[in-house]
Amino acid sequence: MFKKILIANRGEIALRIIRTCREMGIKTVAVYSTADKESLHVRFADEAVCIGPPAGRDSYLNIPNIIAAAEITNADAIHPGYGFLSENAKFAQACIDHNIKFIGPTPEMIQKMGDKATAKATMRAAGVPVVPGSDGLLESLEHAKKTAAEIGYPVMMKATAGGGGKGMRIVRSENELEKAWESARQEAAAAFGNDGLYMEKFIEEPRHIEIQVFGDQYGKVCHLSERDCSIQRRHQKLIEETPSPFMTPELRKKMGEAAIKGAQAINYEGAGTIEFIVDKDGNFYFMEMNTRIQVEHPVTEEATFFDLIKEQIKVAAGEPISGRNYEPQLYTMECRINAEDPAKGFMPSPGRITNLHIPGGMGVRVDTHIYAGYTIPPFYDSMIAKLIVRAQSREELIVRTKRALQEFVIEGVKTTIPLLIKILDNEQFRAGNFTTRFLDNFDMSDLA
Amino acid sequence: MFKKILIANRGEIALRIIRTCREMGIKTVAVYSTADKESLHVRFADEAVCIGPPAGRDSYLNIPNIIAAAEITNADAIHPGYGFLSENAKFAQACIDHNIKFIGPTPEMIQKMGDKATAKATMRAAGVPVVPGSDGLLESLEHAKKTAAEIGYPVMMKATAGGGGKGMRIVRSENELEKAWESARQEAAAAFGNDGLYMEKFIEEPRHIEIQVFGDQYGKVCHLSERDCSIQRRHQKLIEETPSPFMTPELRKKMGEAAIKGAQAINYEGAGTIEFIVDKDGNFYFMEMNTRIQVEHPVTEEATFFDLIKEQIKVAAGEPISGRNYEPQLYTMECRINAEDPAKGFMPSPGRITNLHIPGGMGVRVDTHIYAGYTIPPFYDSMIAKLIVRAQSREELIVRTKRALQEFVIEGVKTTIPLLIKILDNEQFRAGNFTTRFLDNFDMSDLA
Repeated sequence: MFKKILIANRGEIALRIIRTCREMGIKTVAVYSTADKESLHVRFADEAVCIGPPAGRDSYLNIPNIIAAAEITNADAIHPGYGFLSENAKFAQACIDHNIKFIGPTPEMIQKMGDKATAKATMRAAGVPVVPGSDGLLESLEHAKKTAAEIGYPVMMKATAGGGGKGMRIVRSENELEKAWESARQEAAAAFGNDGLYMEKFIEEPRHIEIQVFGDQYGKVCHLSERDCSIQRRHQKLIEETPSPFMTPELRKKMGEAAIKGAQAINYEGAGTIEFIVDKDGNFYFMEMNTRIQVEHPVTEEATFFDLIKEQIKVAAGEPISGRNYEPQLYTMECRINAEDPAKGFMPSPGRITNLHIPGGMGVRVDTHIYAGYTIPPFYDSMIAKLIVRAQSREELIVRTKRALQEFVIEGVKTTIPLLIKILDNEQFRAGNFTTRFLDNFDMSDLA
Repeated sequence: MFKKILIANRGEIALRIIRTCREMGIKTVAVYSTADKESLHVRFADEAVCIGPPAGRDSYLNIPNIIAAAEITNADAIHPGYGFLSENAKFAQACIDHNIKFIGPTPEMIQKMGDKATAKATMRAAGVPVVPGSDGLLESLEHAKKTAAEIGYPVMMKATAGGGGKGMRIVRSENELEKAWESARQEAAAAFGNDGLYMEKFIEEPRHIEIQVFGDQYGKVCHLSERDCSIQRRHQKLIEETPSPFMTPELRKKMGEAAIKGAQAINYEGAGTIEFIVDKDGNFYFMEMNTRIQVEHPVTEEATFFDLIKEQIKVAAGEPISGRNYEPQLYTMECRINAEDPAKGFMPSPGRITNLHIPGGMGVRVDTHIYAGYTIPPFYDSMIAKLIVRAQSREELIVRTKRALQEFVIEGVKTTIPLLIKILDNEQFRAGNFTTRFLDNFDMSDLA
């Protein structure tokens, strides 16, 4: 087992990793930018090394400085956390070159899944469903008809040069196709000077449901069931939960098997997440694979009792996994608390926390690096805390999460807490009846 | 269901009850002494009523003031928490007289279990084992021999007027009895002017193991397995855990059945705890029954996922229980954090908390009413926080608990945290090999 791990990250995830290292008897090295010298991860690590000025590219993204910090402190492994260098194949390679174990997959796996087209092709070849579509541009109306018939209605035609919905058409049957084809081409030509169109299957009532997978160095892969991350604002997850209100045992089995197949196709090692888009009929399609620990990993931890960071470290040290899959034993939900003003377009709200009370009690876990008197620097991600709640039913989960949110006292900065409470009060949300578009038309004007 | 519950208590348990009431949609009324007006239970309750000056007898033990507060605020039930009026039959009766539901058993049940002799006689009659002994004084050496033969060696002779170990003898066989009889009588006569002796079975390597029971208003009783509370200082519990390292499935079954039998004998209603003393061979004997929620109830909550406060309220409102028993699904442990100086005989250490960090992360629950800037008043119990940890094995539980204790930052007062860490480091404790005498000769001089 490793003797000393350097954590190439900051904030709550650095603290999260330190906690597990302590429990495993492994020494820790924190790295920090000059903006973070008062951070808890610096306080709680056994050693701490300053790696540069505030800007991420000069500190937490500065590969030479981080490698040097590991060498100076004799760390034998590096945990990258999420974000920053966690999916940077060059960094993973630099670790190998300096004989330091990178706690995560190989540079090749990171690269393969980091390139969207390669990732999709790899998954398709492995038999994992990907969103069906035209291979490249539609050459003619006839070609469009043939493609649509192959992938099945409804389909979506999109302008290859497109954006902002221009040249985009949902087509529900063949007799709508000709009209849509003509009008989309005209619109695309007018908007972009390019009338090229391609086609994809239209996903009705899409949900974002991801499967947590785990692989060891011996080719064994298991899954730890799903997280429903459909509640997003501009592709940023806000609330994640397991089990998904949409899930059935059959669908979990199918998605779990597909995720394992995908991970096995690249001999995946460590913690990874396969993100799927799921339509209203339970058809699911590969979107992307994250080759690192996710922000929302505690949702799975609280539901399965499986310490994902501990397992990452064990697998990186060469321990085998059992290979059995894990199903949620409880209902769990994570709310991301960001220092942002939802009423002002989620404008970041850095600054000093003048007063703080963190909720507690039964079923409540809070992962955070903030404390009373802490100043949130303006240089990094605005997430300041994760509230993770567990309960015996989804109904109990929602009231408990709301109770905990209401108990939070964070004075001095604006946060997403009022928005989170409003979402929890929403009837559609309570009924489990939501898609990734849930927040698109959500009224936030009263949250000022 | 109740619309509004008054909580006749303070500190963490008041907060604990408010949390569950919120989750159940029940309004809450806090009561507080003038010393507690800045308390979190006052802040988080829907209403708050001052019930008197600091001294407990004038406020939290002041029955007329508490009943008046309930009447003024139209509370339809009172939760007494633990301590204070929670086992006061007069208070339970006063609630009935004022048409307010007391969340707990009837005054008769409280009274019956509150009187030690009646409790023991009731349990013996119900077939629950009690520590065997002479009925009253030993009349002669012959009587002593006969009694010892009946209850079985080893036995303990004790002076009826005794204390401090004077006139006390452990007798391991009949040929030791005559000598012990003479010397104990002489010693008792010299020490107390009274040579009366009685006899009890001597419990070798005693453990304090209690069974959590739950009864409804319809005669159904279940148990929620055990808590091992052997780690005590002067009969004050310091660490509690489940499962007990001493427990076997067979013993749990036997103790659970005995506890249910005892509770059924008095038609017990609500949450209760039957405390047993258990010897090295797994023989167990009734000590007492606590007719209230216990400080250490979260140990059971985290292991069984069963919200005991919620169930108390539901049962008090007339809901039936399922009747099935609950076994621990995880390993859980509670550490009581007191504002005391263990190196100075546990002298209370009230005062202002100047700096505070509460541990978090996977498997960690903290129930506390303190915050940075809070002043611990000198008038009440010195417990300021409960750390409750859960894990997948006892080994993981101990390292996680230690990690969380080390992460606590409580500046401005002395606490039991250094002692708790020292206990967790002890090899005998780690091996699960301890009795109620564990702390008797524990070196605390280095904790200054």
